Amino acid sequence: MNKFIDRLDEITNRNQSLLCVGLDPWLPSMPIKDIAEFNKEIIQATKDLVCAYKPQFAFYEAEGIDGLKALEETLKAIPNNVPIILDVKRGDLGNTSNAYAKAAFEIWGADAVTVSPFMGLDSIQPFIDYLDKGIFILTRTSNPGGSDFQELLIQTSDSEYRPLYLHIASKVNNWNTFNNLGLVVGATNPQELQQIRGECPSLPILIPGIGAQGGDLRSSIEFGIDSQGRRAIINASRSIIYASDGLDFAEAARREALTLRNSINLILSEINQGW
Amino acid sequence: MNKFIDRLDEITNRNQSLLCVGLDPWLPSMPIKDIAEFNKEIIQATKDLVCAYKPQFAFYEAEGIDGLKALEETLKAIPNNVPIILDVKRGDLGNTSNAYAKAAFEIWGADAVTVSPFMGLDSIQPFIDYLDKGIFILTRTSNPGGSDFQELLIQTSDSEYRPLYLHIASKVNNWNTFNNLGLVVGATNPQELQQIRGECPSLPILIPGIGAQGGDLRSSIEFGIDSQGRRAIINASRSIIYASDGLDFAEAARREALTLRNSINLILSEINQGW
Repeated sequence: MNKFIDRLDEITNRNQSLLCVGLDPWLPSMPIKDIAEFNKEIIQATKDLVCAYKPQFAFYEAEGIDGLKALEETLKAIPNNVPIILDVKRGDLGNTSNAYAKAAFEIWGADAVTVSPFMGLDSIQPFIDYLDKGIFILTRTSNPGGSDFQELLIQTSDSEYRPLYLHIASKVNNWNTFNNLGLVVGATNPQELQQIRGECPSLPILIPGIGAQGGDLRSSIEFGIDSQGRRAIINASRSIIYASDGLDFAEAARREALTLRNSINLILSEINQGW
Repeated sequence: MNKFIDRLDEITNRNQSLLCVGLDPWLPSMPIKDIAEFNKEIIQATKDLVCAYKPQFAFYEAEGIDGLKALEETLKAIPNNVPIILDVKRGDLGNTSNAYAKAAFEIWGADAVTVSPFMGLDSIQPFIDYLDKGIFILTRTSNPGGSDFQELLIQTSDSEYRPLYLHIASKVNNWNTFNNLGLVVGATNPQELQQIRGECPSLPILIPGIGAQGGDLRSSIEFGIDSQGRRAIINASRSIIYASDGLDFAEAARREALTLRNSINLILSEINQGW
């Protein structure tokens, strides 16, 4: 199998898209109550417009065994050439981390996962050891509490201080021996995204927080892309999959996905990074 | 329902035990290959010797839907008066965190969970909102990479610096409005455990890393207990549940659990904190 990063680059170019659609089933918002069926229709309607899908594990786990069966079914319905980023934010030690990596890549069949850096390199290593997979490490999150710890100034040498999120970015860049790491950086802090991109010039950056969370699209793209105008993965979930609460939800999702992909591409072309 | 902390105190006193048994099924180590059956026998053999059980979610997820069904069945087999600490180390934002809290407490029926502090207070808030449940926040982990970020010196005021883990401990202590928070502190750093206990005099501390991970039992107890000699939850997993690789595994688990509980109690009585 090709490496994740190559597969990501390929579908990005094929679909001319930096858009990732988050598959976050939330029954009260869904016009049909069959999670797998809902997702399949969304996937069918958007698969030529995206560079990845990102199912959020929590929304499936919250529906119990049936929800997890729906996750299994959903992942099987995603075309092989569109990478699946399973959003699990795992972080644990030793053989526990092995078990989580096995679950994500072998049980669920994800192409990439999100993980937390809190427990350090050896907690991420079992994921890294799947050389063809992608591992996106939380670096700066878009929620209000993201600042509780991530913005703290930490001492990196006798006289040098920098925010924790930037230190994490620099560590991840150093850990990227097998070219299978990426970052998660929320869309709500453009200047921080710019700093982080400066630290990690070629890593893919998954950028949630567009749409329902209100992040600024233009600055996310401008500061998130690499020097080739790629490798920023702009995630939107609710604004696309719940664009309509009627039975035309798939059609509405396609319309929203197309609009957002095209808005992204317009911005790219305005900064001379078009297709 | 009573608050988690009261239930923990009650079973601690009833069973005269600070021991928590980790239910971490790992098929290659198991003499019988039915996870739920294996766990039920372990539970039956040890339920009067423990203050809690701690199933590690990863080991169930790694066996797919069948593994998660075994988790469900395992949790139902735990007596009502013994709290279940579901080790999931979740950490996510907004409605995703809501979904994880719902999953842990309503779907699986856990009495307490482990969570990661990395995304800050609002990522933990949905768990806190279950006032009768317990939330153990990762503070200092026992793995080698635990030092990658947790030991970094962070600036807390113009001229004050302290390690991140201590800052987390102090935050958690402040966040404990509803008396339902606790900490996870690995057994491998006794001095750090002592500092953390100093910061949080009455919070329960879950202490993994005894046994297979080699943490020192005496110092974990001495530095982990509160002023009443309680609220240190000493977790052991592999050394107990895999004490025998034969069909006498439950009997062997009981023997090991009894030995460890008694060793803990001997140390407690030596420091005048016996029952």
